[in-house]
Amino acid sequence: MRETAIDSAVNARFKRWKRLAHETRMVKKERASLIEGIHLVEVVRDADTDVMAVIVDAERVTEEALALARQTCEIKHAHLFFMASGLYNELSPVEHGVGVMAEIALPDPLEAIPEGTDVLYLDGVQDAGNAGTLIRTAVAAGIKTIVASPTTALLWTPKVLRAGMGAHFGATIIENIDAQSLREGFAGRILAADARGGEDLFAAGDYTGGAVAWIMGAEGPGVSAEALAVTDQRFYIPISKDCESLNVGAAAAVCLFDTVRRRAAH
Amino acid sequence: MRETAIDSAVNARFKRWKRLAHETRMVKKERASLIEGIHLVEVVRDADTDVMAVIVDAERVTEEALALARQTCEIKHAHLFFMASGLYNELSPVEHGVGVMAEIALPDPLEAIPEGTDVLYLDGVQDAGNAGTLIRTAVAAGIKTIVASPTTALLWTPKVLRAGMGAHFGATIIENIDAQSLREGFAGRILAADARGGEDLFAAGDYTGGAVAWIMGAEGPGVSAEALAVTDQRFYIPISKDCESLNVGAAAAVCLFDTVRRRAAH
Repeated sequence: MRETAIDSAVNARFKRWKRLAHETRMVKKERASLIEGIHLVEVVRDADTDVMAVIVDAERVTEEALALARQTCEIKHAHLFFMASGLYNELSPVEHGVGVMAEIALPDPLEAIPEGTDVLYLDGVQDAGNAGTLIRTAVAAGIKTIVASPTTALLWTPKVLRAGMGAHFGATIIENIDAQSLREGFAGRILAADARGGEDLFAAGDYTGGAVAWIMGAEGPGVSAEALAVTDQRFYIPISKDCESLNVGAAAAVCLFDTVRRRAAH
Repeated sequence: MRETAIDSAVNARFKRWKRLAHETRMVKKERASLIEGIHLVEVVRDADTDVMAVIVDAERVTEEALALARQTCEIKHAHLFFMASGLYNELSPVEHGVGVMAEIALPDPLEAIPEGTDVLYLDGVQDAGNAGTLIRTAVAAGIKTIVASPTTALLWTPKVLRAGMGAHFGATIIENIDAQSLREGFAGRILAADARGGEDLFAAGDYTGGAVAWIMGAEGPGVSAEALAVTDQRFYIPISKDCESLNVGAAAAVCLFDTVRRRAAH
């Protein structure tokens, strides 16, 4: 295993990682990203993901994190970098982390939706935290194909990965698919969660006969006109009159687990 | 209506607001907080909440926000302050807001849980964003009494208010109640969402005969031993084996809306 120390802000690798940490277009261009923390590094260690480098905070890394870093480097044939704390903090999305991070290669982009699987379609979800939480909730609900509209945040930035808590690596993620392409590429029933109308989710008849694609829109605007145009069935969640709306993470949890519940009852 | 300009960082009001914006203990001590944005100001304008001051960004406030500011000042007999942009930004939790903010007085602290109402009990939820989202989800599910353990974040800081999106003002919030006091002060059934065991939420028999108190723990540790000790019934959400856990906001949405669904089916 090769081990290298990085102490200087003009180091070319450091400069590249700093751009990956903060610039979406760099993640897109390089097809690489950064993940941080024990949990995410463990997930990629065990996943079929290419790890290009493991980076530890030379001054603050915990024993556990360092052991994991070395093990991950061995399994993935990756370089280990010991980075000065000041530089490490410039890459890290958390203030008091354990001091381990990895550069991963993004999977090759897919264009076709796998046949017969359920789908979560992100329709203009621009907030990175929301996008990551939605991926996590979908995978927890057994919905492992995540499809995103061109107006949705890039799903592989460090922030989205962080909120996803490893769910990315159990999912198939297909980006840049507009609503019309979803309709053409998906043979099942397209469902939209839409506070503005449709059927009461809980009172509605069973909709889980075949594969379903759930469309979730952004906070505020909700599901777009383009996405509604390809929707087979709209549902609203019956919320109290005293509250204007649910956040999109909560709404998705209610809808996706409604599907889980109905399927379990079959 | 009195209108005052504030241009200096040594202005006593500005210094006080800055502490309210960033120091939890100041919110606690002064029983006051700050809210920002059109939606929250509209909510407090219409709520039975004391508004002590309305603050606008003198350089960037939109016409709509300024009209709302003046109207709120009139209704609430509050002062209007025009603040220099640089200072306003030091108070604001958002980068590109519309430029309107208000100082509110917190309601008098309650100690007793109202009889016969459903409860959401926050058990050590320290993340402000999660705490606010949980309040919002509970109010949307018609659960309007929010009770918090001493280990939970203060629920009235600007960050929690922001994530709550106005739900605070439709809720009764009771803080600093330990699990034993919840048990003594609540006559209904205490339910815990606990990934480590209990019954399958969807397969379980009806639990909604009387008032319920749902306990939600923190991300990671989950429900505390103290809270489990007073729990009548534990539930887990049946999640896919490929995913370790749901975030607490998603878990709460699934549980609280399970209650809504079961009640609607009666």
